[in-house]
Amino acid sequence: MERALILDCNNKVGEKVKICGWVQVRRDHGKIVFLDVLDRSAVIQVVATGEVAGDLHSQDVVCIEGKVAQRPEKLINPNLETGTIELQAEKIEVLSKAEELPFDMGGKELDLQLPTLLDYRALTLRHPKVKEVFKVQEIVIDAFREALKKKDFTEFQSPVIIPQTAEGGAEVFEVKYFDHKAYLAQSPQFYKQIMVGVFERVFTVNKTLRAEPSVTTRHLTEVTTLDGEFGFIESWQDVMDMVEYVIKYILDRVDKECVDILKMFKTSAPQISEKLPRVKLREAQEIIYKRTGRDNREEPDLEPEDEREISRWALEEHGSELVFVTHYPVSKRPFYTYEDPDDPGYTLSFDLIGRGTEWLTGGQRINNYDVLVEKAKEKGVDLKKSELYLQAFKYGLPPEGGFSFGSERIVMHILGLANIREASLFPRDMERVDVRLSTIK
Amino acid sequence: MERALILDCNNKVGEKVKICGWVQVRRDHGKIVFLDVLDRSAVIQVVATGEVAGDLHSQDVVCIEGKVAQRPEKLINPNLETGTIELQAEKIEVLSKAEELPFDMGGKELDLQLPTLLDYRALTLRHPKVKEVFKVQEIVIDAFREALKKKDFTEFQSPVIIPQTAEGGAEVFEVKYFDHKAYLAQSPQFYKQIMVGVFERVFTVNKTLRAEPSVTTRHLTEVTTLDGEFGFIESWQDVMDMVEYVIKYILDRVDKECVDILKMFKTSAPQISEKLPRVKLREAQEIIYKRTGRDNREEPDLEPEDEREISRWALEEHGSELVFVTHYPVSKRPFYTYEDPDDPGYTLSFDLIGRGTEWLTGGQRINNYDVLVEKAKEKGVDLKKSELYLQAFKYGLPPEGGFSFGSERIVMHILGLANIREASLFPRDMERVDVRLSTIK
Repeated sequence: MERALILDCNNKVGEKVKICGWVQVRRDHGKIVFLDVLDRSAVIQVVATGEVAGDLHSQDVVCIEGKVAQRPEKLINPNLETGTIELQAEKIEVLSKAEELPFDMGGKELDLQLPTLLDYRALTLRHPKVKEVFKVQEIVIDAFREALKKKDFTEFQSPVIIPQTAEGGAEVFEVKYFDHKAYLAQSPQFYKQIMVGVFERVFTVNKTLRAEPSVTTRHLTEVTTLDGEFGFIESWQDVMDMVEYVIKYILDRVDKECVDILKMFKTSAPQISEKLPRVKLREAQEIIYKRTGRDNREEPDLEPEDEREISRWALEEHGSELVFVTHYPVSKRPFYTYEDPDDPGYTLSFDLIGRGTEWLTGGQRINNYDVLVEKAKEKGVDLKKSELYLQAFKYGLPPEGGFSFGSERIVMHILGLANIREASLFPRDMERVDVRLSTIK
Repeated sequence: MERALILDCNNKVGEKVKICGWVQVRRDHGKIVFLDVLDRSAVIQVVATGEVAGDLHSQDVVCIEGKVAQRPEKLINPNLETGTIELQAEKIEVLSKAEELPFDMGGKELDLQLPTLLDYRALTLRHPKVKEVFKVQEIVIDAFREALKKKDFTEFQSPVIIPQTAEGGAEVFEVKYFDHKAYLAQSPQFYKQIMVGVFERVFTVNKTLRAEPSVTTRHLTEVTTLDGEFGFIESWQDVMDMVEYVIKYILDRVDKECVDILKMFKTSAPQISEKLPRVKLREAQEIIYKRTGRDNREEPDLEPEDEREISRWALEEHGSELVFVTHYPVSKRPFYTYEDPDDPGYTLSFDLIGRGTEWLTGGQRINNYDVLVEKAKEKGVDLKKSELYLQAFKYGLPPEGGFSFGSERIVMHILGLANIREASLFPRDMERVDVRLSTIK
């Protein structure tokens, strides 16, 4: 008998079918056993005698033959896609028997401490509330690609392994590369700028690696970044406009396609205004000072609490949970950032702050070879180590800019997760790469 | 004046426009200068006086204002998307002046030795015949995703950094990970199998890293692999059927969307039969022996020349440039490969050979925990080092299988490139990571 997808059983009332999937939950009611069985399409309630159900329990993999029946009116479950039907099991074949579970997987919440959640990742990922996080990530990434393709952007593959880094810094992972040293890319920045010279508008989805020596709730050593870069901008505002278009496109798809997931997490996609508010860093600090009395007006950056406060302001004053903060000082931005000719000492760069943290960073880049080399020198960056990058400017590059999202950050804040590790399938940090590093001899 | 895309100038004959792009070629004809100018949409011929054209040359970035004019009948170029029009330049603004080029970029072919092609990668990638390779790669990857999404596959992000590897082997790159050692993923194999337990059908597009100590025309240390894996297969043939569907989907899109590129490379997408031929390794060796007298019937694998010969056979006998070779011996396949119960010693695994080399490898996997652990032991694989992987089987995994394409291999063979480095934007090998490693102090 051929397998039917569970969702299709809605159209097979009265018919005999075979479904295959995982037992999610078992409930014994006297002589009757109820099983929730899940496949890639949906969950269905299976009714079986104790004899047919045997010792089945959560995570057993089964194929079940039986008859699809309409549920009595009062047993209809409106929260289930197959809530009007059930499967009356006649025969159950066990394809793979699961060991007894180390904890209960049957509840609506998976009430585990983070280390346990991660120590049993192959199992805990199967819990509905854990796995759906990655349906949202899939949609965020897919929407990013779709949005930019509609604007003539070309997708390219940026490398992970890079040669000696011009920018250097302690936060770069070192790789033993045959008889040499190589490094892991912290961002596709140089490559996407090179690619502007090739396709004019490009984007790339990448794992970026950063030897982040802190163990916060917001940092991972490996993240999936969504990068765009494009040439022939008239102004740096074009870059913000493009970001605004992209993030709206992403949130719109999440809103439409994740209705049930958002409900499950008791949240909604961020509220945004027609035009996202754009404030200079100094203006933001002034606003924060006026609202809270906290005086960070001399600081070159926003502190975490400042990010939260400016988010509150944006929501209250502009009805937007997203806000652009612009004009970070030259000292705080990479050498290739464009300085504002009308506001010397400050750059044509921006962060997009969403629900209290940075989601994205972007800006206009220096495209003039001589200026770039000079600025690199000022920051002690040895561009001779980045020949290909320099070539892009030597041989003609238009005014350009770009942006970089962290996909985990976006998902974390859409769903209101407490820790970014929950937004990464297999989170890596200082202390863990799948297993706790301290346990490795 | 607002910028017009070059392709849109086809609809603006008689109008004044401003276009922006790169000078590709300059041709001086007495007092008149012809410039081919390129943007992301197309190339256009610009006509200018010597005075307006100044010292413009290839790779200069310009904005040109002028009038779009119909070309005289006899000057129409049917090979150009804008071949019926030209732009009569009135004003040229230089956005970025290019240095003099180290070689001619104006010809239809870029006749450079590979090392030069790579030493100047940021420049050479701009040559039409170099850059279009990566349009094909973009389409191959996009088609892969699209094909599998239509079959209910979920895209997931597989990690680059992995803990100590169960399989070990000298070909794994080692990373200095804070106070520990970590490694770079050679494939998402373990993770995609884990994810079958979560979403049933999954795919992932990844950079995979292999410390390949050979410098051949077919190997890179960093490649972009396209991986799929899915559960509830009835038979290992289901896996080949899925591969057949995917590769046909990819080739179909290349065929439709890359007409001009295929023409440029004087090639066509591989010819395939309705059903791709499927032969066991031993049958293939027998065929090769009969056709050539070369007796490799005792070998556990195909040699490169064997792969070419079985491709010739498939084309001649089945009208297909793609052929599945199946049933590699247990000794030559990873521990998780399913052994054929009807053909002991041989596995339910396959390679897809296309135009003379391997494009893909795949097969059914062992999904029974005890068998898996036993087979691992036999191969000296220490699975205790891969706790998460083991969990997937401990807690119920259906019969499943999967496959892995190398995107560069496919592109190389579709376009008939001589060296796989030409199919990688920034190829990495033993001797080069952007720059020749021997030049790094």
